[in-house]
Amino acid sequence: MTDTTPLQRAQRWLDQFGAAQTSDKTDAAVALFAADCYWRDLVSFTWNIRTQEGLDAVRDMLSSRMTETGASNFQLEGEPTEADGVTEAWFTFETRLARGRGQLRLKDDKAWTLLTTMTELKGFEEKTGSHRIKGAEHGAQQGRQSWLERREAEEARLGYEAQPYVVIIGGGQGGIVLAARLKRLGVPTIVIEKNPKAGDSWRNRYKTLCLHDPVWYDHLPYMPFPDDWPVFAPKDKLGDWLEMYTKVMEINYWGSTLAKKASFDEAKGEWTVVVEREGKEVLLRPKQLVFALGVSGYPNVPKIEGAETFLGEQHHSSKHPGPEHYAGKKCVVLGSNNSAHDICAALWENGVDVTMIQRSSTHIAPSESLMELALGGLYSEEAIKNGIDHHKGDLVFASVPYKIMHTFQIPVYDEMKKREADLYGRLEKAGFMLDFGDDGSGLFMKYLRRGSGYYIDVGASELVADGSIKLKSGVDIQCIHPKSVTLSDGTELPADLIVYATGYGSMNRWLADLVSPEVADRVGKVWGLGSNTTKDPGPWEGELRNMWKPTNQQQLWIHGGNLHQSRHYSQFLSLQLKARYEELDTPVYGQAAVHHLR
Amino acid sequence: MTDTTPLQRAQRWLDQFGAAQTSDKTDAAVALFAADCYWRDLVSFTWNIRTQEGLDAVRDMLSSRMTETGASNFQLEGEPTEADGVTEAWFTFETRLARGRGQLRLKDDKAWTLLTTMTELKGFEEKTGSHRIKGAEHGAQQGRQSWLERREAEEARLGYEAQPYVVIIGGGQGGIVLAARLKRLGVPTIVIEKNPKAGDSWRNRYKTLCLHDPVWYDHLPYMPFPDDWPVFAPKDKLGDWLEMYTKVMEINYWGSTLAKKASFDEAKGEWTVVVEREGKEVLLRPKQLVFALGVSGYPNVPKIEGAETFLGEQHHSSKHPGPEHYAGKKCVVLGSNNSAHDICAALWENGVDVTMIQRSSTHIAPSESLMELALGGLYSEEAIKNGIDHHKGDLVFASVPYKIMHTFQIPVYDEMKKREADLYGRLEKAGFMLDFGDDGSGLFMKYLRRGSGYYIDVGASELVADGSIKLKSGVDIQCIHPKSVTLSDGTELPADLIVYATGYGSMNRWLADLVSPEVADRVGKVWGLGSNTTKDPGPWEGELRNMWKPTNQQQLWIHGGNLHQSRHYSQFLSLQLKARYEELDTPVYGQAAVHHLR
Repeated sequence: MTDTTPLQRAQRWLDQFGAAQTSDKTDAAVALFAADCYWRDLVSFTWNIRTQEGLDAVRDMLSSRMTETGASNFQLEGEPTEADGVTEAWFTFETRLARGRGQLRLKDDKAWTLLTTMTELKGFEEKTGSHRIKGAEHGAQQGRQSWLERREAEEARLGYEAQPYVVIIGGGQGGIVLAARLKRLGVPTIVIEKNPKAGDSWRNRYKTLCLHDPVWYDHLPYMPFPDDWPVFAPKDKLGDWLEMYTKVMEINYWGSTLAKKASFDEAKGEWTVVVEREGKEVLLRPKQLVFALGVSGYPNVPKIEGAETFLGEQHHSSKHPGPEHYAGKKCVVLGSNNSAHDICAALWENGVDVTMIQRSSTHIAPSESLMELALGGLYSEEAIKNGIDHHKGDLVFASVPYKIMHTFQIPVYDEMKKREADLYGRLEKAGFMLDFGDDGSGLFMKYLRRGSGYYIDVGASELVADGSIKLKSGVDIQCIHPKSVTLSDGTELPADLIVYATGYGSMNRWLADLVSPEVADRVGKVWGLGSNTTKDPGPWEGELRNMWKPTNQQQLWIHGGNLHQSRHYSQFLSLQLKARYEELDTPVYGQAAVHHLR
Repeated sequence: MTDTTPLQRAQRWLDQFGAAQTSDKTDAAVALFAADCYWRDLVSFTWNIRTQEGLDAVRDMLSSRMTETGASNFQLEGEPTEADGVTEAWFTFETRLARGRGQLRLKDDKAWTLLTTMTELKGFEEKTGSHRIKGAEHGAQQGRQSWLERREAEEARLGYEAQPYVVIIGGGQGGIVLAARLKRLGVPTIVIEKNPKAGDSWRNRYKTLCLHDPVWYDHLPYMPFPDDWPVFAPKDKLGDWLEMYTKVMEINYWGSTLAKKASFDEAKGEWTVVVEREGKEVLLRPKQLVFALGVSGYPNVPKIEGAETFLGEQHHSSKHPGPEHYAGKKCVVLGSNNSAHDICAALWENGVDVTMIQRSSTHIAPSESLMELALGGLYSEEAIKNGIDHHKGDLVFASVPYKIMHTFQIPVYDEMKKREADLYGRLEKAGFMLDFGDDGSGLFMKYLRRGSGYYIDVGASELVADGSIKLKSGVDIQCIHPKSVTLSDGTELPADLIVYATGYGSMNRWLADLVSPEVADRVGKVWGLGSNTTKDPGPWEGELRNMWKPTNQQQLWIHGGNLHQSRHYSQFLSLQLKARYEELDTPVYGQAAVHHLR
């Protein structure tokens, strides 16, 4: 073993794996995996988003899927490498119906991690590069339509004379990028958005909001941001980009359209979606329904005794208009995570007396350190210089099994503790309750497990540390009065404004409202890994609940996540939808069971 | 010589050239050039766009510019190659004020062609990559403005409380891409456009219009078209892209704004530009004034006896609304180049009886063959696979001296004659007068020399060949009557519609209208090379007259060209403007004299 090169080892493994596939030998394939193994498949084998953990799971999946998948033509891509006893290799492959790309990590010639992803469906490739459409039709034909005429005709017909195959409820970045992918795949799609224009969901946010993830992480599919795009895009600039992206991607985008109700007709195998478009009711009958209303979409507002007596303003952070009208006022912000910090800082900058009420601990990740330590290897100028663009970064990220991801993350946050010891020390001195996740694995695991519980610090922590933003920690608001609030420790705080920076609920709450509680229950809790950590109860799921894959409600899907996830996973969701549109065989392996309702 | 590698030869030449620069030895530098040599400089040495042809010209330029330019640090980029006795090498270099990139062709160790181009000004680099702005300002400051507030404030002030440094008259693709470059360089600029929105100049054209150049040739700076963009973009799709681009590039774009008058105040060293913005008169006082009204901008309409008696419709091709209202009518199209063919084909497709009047010969370049033979090496999927993107393609194109460019082109069109012999034969049989340029050098030389005289065939030629589009060749319209026209051969043609597809005049006609005839004369004829071929009288200029470089009217510039030229040469024009904005020393070497007035 030690006298072979990484190339030879990887090639041999691929050859053996390919041979096992071709000869339909499950045992031969399983024998190539280590006892401690993870095979994450994004659609290509399982028509699902699923991680097979351990030999039994691998065997079970292959027994069910190997023959029909018909995987073959495994080819190395680039040069395999080795470090710390792990050989890493990239490869392409084919299946009966599709083409794919994957990554392999070998330990002692056995697969430790395997990632297989579907990149395109045979016969239904996007028309790009040499296969792009001509545009001008050469030759001449009487009565032909121009591009504009065709586009206008499509926009007039779709949803009326002709039904879309997919309706996406939610026209934020998630709905938009999924629609762009479906457009390229030729799947008739309508995006439903309550705001008038694409980008408005960003424009409507408080004025100082900027993205917290750096630009290299945030590109949309097909049109990366220009190379002078700010590291942290201001909300309105992003709003403009989304508006223009929606237009040039030729997305059928219904702004000023409210989704009222959706119901599934089992007999017809289609949905009826009632929307109100610019005041008029329209009935849409798509086959597939996608909800893209946001991980941080369904506001959570605690019911506090006396809230109705409050004489000042009170609103959830998602409705916070910004600090402009509150100069000289007293504001209480309930919550201590991202929105709370952003809002408190903006209020302070505008001369508002602001107190943050911290109920439970928060993970603080200073932005610069986060960029450098957590993302820099994959999403940065440095990464690009090392040949890792966001396409590659996405695949590297996807290749790390969720089960062991925390082990990759813990060292990052150990380093962050050292680097930021001063800030953390001063925060604790000010009474702030800090954490690094239940197991020290930091921000991204908290995000995956619970979608909350952190602040990417772009300046507010300094204000908390130095007392500019007043802090009451380890308490809650017990009772609200006309001009003040009483905390659980008995303190009374005068208040003109209460902001509930109290987070968001599981996305299937939208389903309860828009479809039915039964369907919401059938789908179950959305997001989280089942890690048995705070706000992420077990059992272990292995993947994010209900995201980008078949749910237990027929023909209902959920899309979303941060810009990186929207970008990458829209690829796999769009392929699953396209396959159904083309009536290909898509037997789902390992449909996840529901363990939690909300 | 024969036992050295291309790398060694190129390296040696660069070392010697660099040493001559550093030691200020003009003779040593000149000695490195062949007798038959061409040194094309884009700004870096000459603060001009200028080709030095022959040793005397090289010596004269170096005597004047070598010391002050202070060129140094010549480094090879990539691997030099050799073919047919010519060594080709790419390199980067610096000057006192700037950085540059260049290309070298050696024959027997002497420079046959040298290209030096300025890529950026030291200290004024675009904020891209690792130097991009942050966006979110870390830390907190009271009273800060959001991105949107800053943008809105800038839009409100510029042109009113604050004057732009540059005003660009003309908001088509030329004005837009120049403005994008200037924005990135931080030069306050306003674009004046008579149509309401960016992209309208394309939307207003006849409905079937598509670009005639293929997509890989057409990218705008900073944001290439997505990889599924049609090969030939339909006009409305391009219009939408330009509108989007203008917005995301944060260009200060004044639509619905008409430029009325401009005059130069020598004492103040600034322009006064009177515009009518949405009905209100505004006075702008930029230092620099750029005209970007289009190579095909100023319509040429011949005065024909009896035109005022015509009862039908008559208009220049630029005003042609498309074929929709003329079904069943009789149409006469005067002209036989691009617009004429496009319009005739669209009319035929809509059931119009159409006759093309060909006054002089036309070069027909079938699109597929043109793409493959003329552009394919530099602008195609194939080129990309060979590592040549449009950035590289632009530089390769720029490295071929205009003086000898026809020698590169003639073989291309010899091949085209063979490939398209059938079509050409049938066209001639139908009476069509064909040419391949005066010297057989085909389309691009005709474009550079006279901006006209060709048709990139996307189907109309077939209709001419088979008689669907009727043809009268070698004639002109002598006289117009209420319902017919008489040709110079005596034929009378009934007509309901006359389209003057009679081309465009020199861009300085705009100057005569908007500034003064004196200034128009001072600037002189725009475009053309002085090749002493049809419509391009000598003497030899060596570069396109008045394009992208200092004119003989102080602080007046002209921008434009096709999408490739707009893209590439906006780089050099923007750098010249930025240098003046920063009050750097920009002594212009070899200001071109005026030999023709229009």
